[in-house]
Parts: sequence; C-alpha cells; structure tokens
Amino acid sequence: MKFTAMKAELLSAVNVAIRAVPAHTTMPILYCILMEASGRGLTFTTNDMEMGIETHVNASIEEEGIVAVEAKIFSDIVRKLPDEMITVEADENLAVNIRCGKTKFAIGGQSGDDFSYLPNVERETEIELSQFSLKNVIQETIFSIAGNENNKIMTGELFDVRENVLRVVALDGHRIAMRRVPLEGENEPVRVIVPGKTLSEIGKILTGEIDDRVRIFFTRNHMVFEMEKTRIVTRLIEGEYFNVDQMISSDYETKVTVNRTSFLSCIDRATLFVKEGDKKPIIIDIEDGYLRLSIESPLGSMDEELDVEKEGRDLTIGFNPRFMIDALRVIDDENVTLYLVNPKAPCFIRDEAGSYTYLILPVNFSR
Amino acid sequence: MKFTAMKAELLSAVNVAIRAVPAHTTMPILYCILMEASGRGLTFTTNDMEMGIETHVNASIEEEGIVAVEAKIFSDIVRKLPDEMITVEADENLAVNIRCGKTKFAIGGQSGDDFSYLPNVERETEIELSQFSLKNVIQETIFSIAGNENNKIMTGELFDVRENVLRVVALDGHRIAMRRVPLEGENEPVRVIVPGKTLSEIGKILTGEIDDRVRIFFTRNHMVFEMEKTRIVTRLIEGEYFNVDQMISSDYETKVTVNRTSFLSCIDRATLFVKEGDKKPIIIDIEDGYLRLSIESPLGSMDEELDVEKEGRDLTIGFNPRFMIDALRVIDDENVTLYLVNPKAPCFIRDEAGSYTYLILPVNFSR
Repeated sequence: MKFTAMKAELLSAVNVAIRAVPAHTTMPILYCILMEASGRGLTFTTNDMEMGIETHVNASIEEEGIVAVEAKIFSDIVRKLPDEMITVEADENLAVNIRCGKTKFAIGGQSGDDFSYLPNVERETEIELSQFSLKNVIQETIFSIAGNENNKIMTGELFDVRENVLRVVALDGHRIAMRRVPLEGENEPVRVIVPGKTLSEIGKILTGEIDDRVRIFFTRNHMVFEMEKTRIVTRLIEGEYFNVDQMISSDYETKVTVNRTSFLSCIDRATLFVKEGDKKPIIIDIEDGYLRLSIESPLGSMDEELDVEKEGRDLTIGFNPRFMIDALRVIDDENVTLYLVNPKAPCFIRDEAGSYTYLILPVNFSR
Repeated sequence: MKFTAMKAELLSAVNVAIRAVPAHTTMPILYCILMEASGRGLTFTTNDMEMGIETHVNASIEEEGIVAVEAKIFSDIVRKLPDEMITVEADENLAVNIRCGKTKFAIGGQSGDDFSYLPNVERETEIELSQFSLKNVIQETIFSIAGNENNKIMTGELFDVRENVLRVVALDGHRIAMRRVPLEGENEPVRVIVPGKTLSEIGKILTGEIDDRVRIFFTRNHMVFEMEKTRIVTRLIEGEYFNVDQMISSDYETKVTVNRTSFLSCIDRATLFVKEGDKKPIIIDIEDGYLRLSIESPLGSMDEELDVEKEGRDLTIGFNPRFMIDALRVIDDENVTLYLVNPKAPCFIRDEAGSYTYLILPVNFSR
C-alpha cells in the first residue's frame, strides 16, 4: 500500500478517526486506525465497538492495500511533521514508512484481518440538519446526562422526532435538559436513546458550520451520522426512555426574569465557597423587583442583589449552583425566565418559543 | 481599615503578592496577604521566608489599619468581582467586608502581629537593568538548575557582576546555561547564588517591557529587586559556586552551523519515541554538508537529514534530546553553531558575541 497526501489533510482525517479509538480495550487491534487504499480512494476506519468512524482522506493512491497502524503514534507522527506532502507506504511485512521531505519514520503495522469493520446499516428513517444545529443541541444538553452507569438509560440522550421537530433530552435524576430543533420536510416519527459518550465525540467532529449538513439514519439498533467525508455508526441504548412530558409542567406561582450574564456571574462568585463534591446550596430570595442570592460557608459568606422582573408570590429556594450554571451557560438569550412553584418543586427555565426547557430540582436548606 | 480601589488595580497587586505565598507552611499566617493602609498608601506584603514581596496598590484610603487575609480566597474573590470599584473594610474584630456594586463578601481576617515582615536590607552594591533583560535572562537559564535538593548550590543561579557585565549561570551536572548581559555605568563586582524558585517567581512578576527598569541590591545574605511598585527580597544560597570558567573551553574539532528551528523541530519529532524518564539518546551523525539525526525504539524509528555548514572532522555523538531542546528554544538566532570535540566531550552552543553559552554533556550510545 502506498499513498501521498498533504499533512493538513492527513491530520484532519486522523483527528476525526481517533475519536473512536478506545482508551482501554481487550482487543489491541482497536487501538489502530485501519487505512484502506483502493480504487475508491483512501479511508481511515476506527471502532471502539460502541461507535465506529469511517472517514475519507484526500490522497493520491500509488498502490492499493490495507494496513492497520496504532492510532496514537501515527497521529503524533503526522502532527509533528512539517506542513508538506507526506508519503505513507506499507511493505508485504506490514512495515510502515512515513516520509516527508528528508524525514523518515518507520513503525510496525498490523494486518486488518482482525479489525472490526463498521456494520452495514440499512438507511431506513432519516433526518437532516445543519452541523451547526446538531453541534449546538449536543452541547446544550449533554451536561445533564448521568455520569455513572447505574442507570444505563440516563447515560444516553433521547432523540425524539415528532411532528417534524427533533427533541433532544438528557436527564440525570436531578435535572432535565431539553432542546427542540425544527426539521425541514416531512419526517417519520422516531424515538431512540443515543449513548452520551458517542454524542460527545460527535460534537467534537462536527464543524459547527451552518452550511455543512449532516444526515442521520435510524434503525432498530443503530444510528448513522453521515457528513461529507465522514460516516459515524453508533449502537443505540436499549430500553424505554422516561416519559419526560409527564415531568414537565407549565404551572407556576412565581415568574422571574433576570439578565442571564449577571445571574451567571453572581452564581459563579458564590461557588468560591463551594468545594468540589460539596452539596452546599445557594439560597435565592425572590421579592418584588429583586433577587437576593446568598451563601454561607466556614470560609466566608457572600450575598448579592440582582434587579429582576417578578410576577407572583415571594419565594425562598435553594439550588445546587453547578446545575444552575450549566443551564445558564448554554442559553444564548440576554434574559432568562425562571418559573417556580414552591421551595420543594422543580424550577423551570424556558423560553416562550419552547426551543429550550431546563428543569432543576431544588435542594433543601436550613437557615 | 478601609480602602477603595479599582478591581484591575487590586487584582494586579494580588497577582504579584501571591507569588510569595507558600504552598505549604507550618506558619498559617504566611498563607495571608498583609494589607497595610497608612498615610503612605496601601501595601500588600507576603513572605514565604525565602522570598518576600511588598507591592504598592493604587487605592484611596478611608481608614488606616492593618489586616491579614488568606491570599487564595481574597484573590479568588477579587478575580470574580465585576470590573468596578471595590471597597475593602475590616472592623475591630478583623471581619473583612469586600463590596462591589450590590455584591458583598464577608471573610475572616487575622491580625498582622505574627506576620513575618520583610527584612530591612542595606542598599549596598547595586545594578540596574531593564525588566525585559532580566526576565529574558531568567527564562534563558532557569531550566538548567537542578530540580532536587541534593546539591543546594545547583538549585540556584549564579549572578556574577564583573567588568560591567552581569553573567547568569545555571548548571545541573549535565549541562550549563550561561548568559551575559552588559550593564550601564560602573558596577562593583558581585558574586552571589540566588534561589532558582525565587527567580522563577520574579520572572513571572517582571513586565518584560524594555522601558521598565529594575534595580537589584546585593548584601551578604540578601538580594533586593526593586521595581516601580514592587520590592522583592530574597535570601541568598550560602556557599561557593562552581568555577564555571574552568568547565568552559573554546577548543573544538568540529564546528557545525544549522538552522535553529529546523534542528529544533527535528529533535522534537524524535522525542515521539522517548518516553518520560527514559534515557534514550538521539544520535547525531555529522558529515560534510549534512547532519543526520536518528533514534530507534521499540515503537519505531526515525531518521532525518538537515543541511549544515561544517568545519573539521566527521563525528557521531549522542545527546539527551530534552537538553538540546531546552537550549535551542531560548536562543533567538536564526542559525546556531555547535562546537564539538569527540563523542565523550561536551558540546558547546555559543554565539560569536559571547552573549550565550550552552554546554551539554553527551550520552553514551551503542549501535
């Protein structure tokens, strides 16, 4: 096998492919990028058995063939080479030579025989959206998935297509993040649970450009993300997702509108007194015209007043500041509106258009 | 005590003062910044018993007094406050209030009674140079001090003033870094050993501006760095520094001139095959017109040729790539010249003007 490509091309393909290289695996071949040079061009494939990536590389092929190289070392070599033409060549013993100008690297390759190729997925149901929208919707929800595996379903996100709207939901038992993205054309209903880890890697691969499209195909057990040069196949999480509609209510007793960045920096300041893993809540007093945030700790105390527009009853309520910060950070609006019922009931942050809904459970506090 | 200052002023003073706050100490008061508001203005003082910092803050003083506050928490608070006027007030119980707009922080202060004030150092011998020069000369040598305390003298740098030149030397038993900075005016000879840790903190405080000056005073046991707003006092390391002149020779058998950045990136690429703590040398073959660098490892091998200008004998020699990289990184010249004798003798990198000399001991290798 032998091909030649510009460093920038090779590097961007490697940076995509490496996202599906597992950190730990019992199958050493999965630490590799499979390089296939054929009549159809050059493709790099990786697979951690939950997610697989296949990406096309702009290269000129001088000899067809297949070889697997360790992703980490190959990526390091490409990164450190000068910004010039790179030639990669594997001989019959799978010794791989990488040449660039007067630099020559030699590493050992492996045969692709044991490699786990990507499953061939039927293209049944399909949606299409911009890479900008998909990247955003992942960033705006992914922090709400559960970190531990006690409840497998909570480690994934719901992708729910209904009435030509994609609804993406993440929840961890303390909070819910929900975003709605309108879709073009007519779309069949779908409801699947996508592993959070996969989504977070996909988020890093997506360009985030509004003009770049991504097509998503759904089957019973898999989902495929197809971009210009790259195809990502992920397994789905089996099971029935929570009935989120039941958890979300539009009743409220108190409605407060506050400047988002002021509120965010105010909570951020309060976290000075919250140590990692500490469950100390921030306490928010809502009265006519202002919101007072306060926190007490052995290190010291803080309190701050913010101007707000308020409707309904006065209220004092406690929150985990982390959850509030996570939600406020991914909202774009200048002002946010909080809907509250009482100190034991969830707080909702949502916009009028219904494009986002964040639910945060309050925390008990004593004064 | 009560004063008012802009956030930016307060923050830059705190960022300077915090450099002499120890990471660990048996004297808890040293975790504090001592704030003194008096007729002479506001000063912040810190002291880790090796180095002490005193910095002046632009503030308007409403009530004179002294209070010590924990540096870490005070610095975090100031950093997180909005970019506005901040008022700091301590009451008779040393409770400290920090106010900014509608934000109010309260932390506990301490009395300054147990604080270790900076020693009053006689201003005997003195030199003066730009902060630009001092910052550079530290950066260009500090990496060559020894990291462990087995030989106390090696953890410091020699500051040697002779014939109106400041010579700064660092060595760790495997390499020497030496820089010469011409001084203005007439300067008395001085020869002291300055703790490396202090110098590295001072390097971070110096503005690096060519127009900002720093005056350095030397006494038997101390050295004082005096800038516009800040005074830093450091203890000196006792003992006699190595006779560096004896170690440095100008004889050579081979002289090679090479493009610095090409050589640097070439060695950098080779380090892909050098694991942390690994003693694997890079091997350099010097022949007429080119230099070949090669490295072998279980992961793979690399070799690369660079165009050079060479005088004298051919030579094959091995180096710790780290040492070579450290020296090449801090040289500004487009080309560097290496002077070599044989595979067992030190290699010198030096310029014709004698402004820098880097000595690197070679490493044994087998082929």
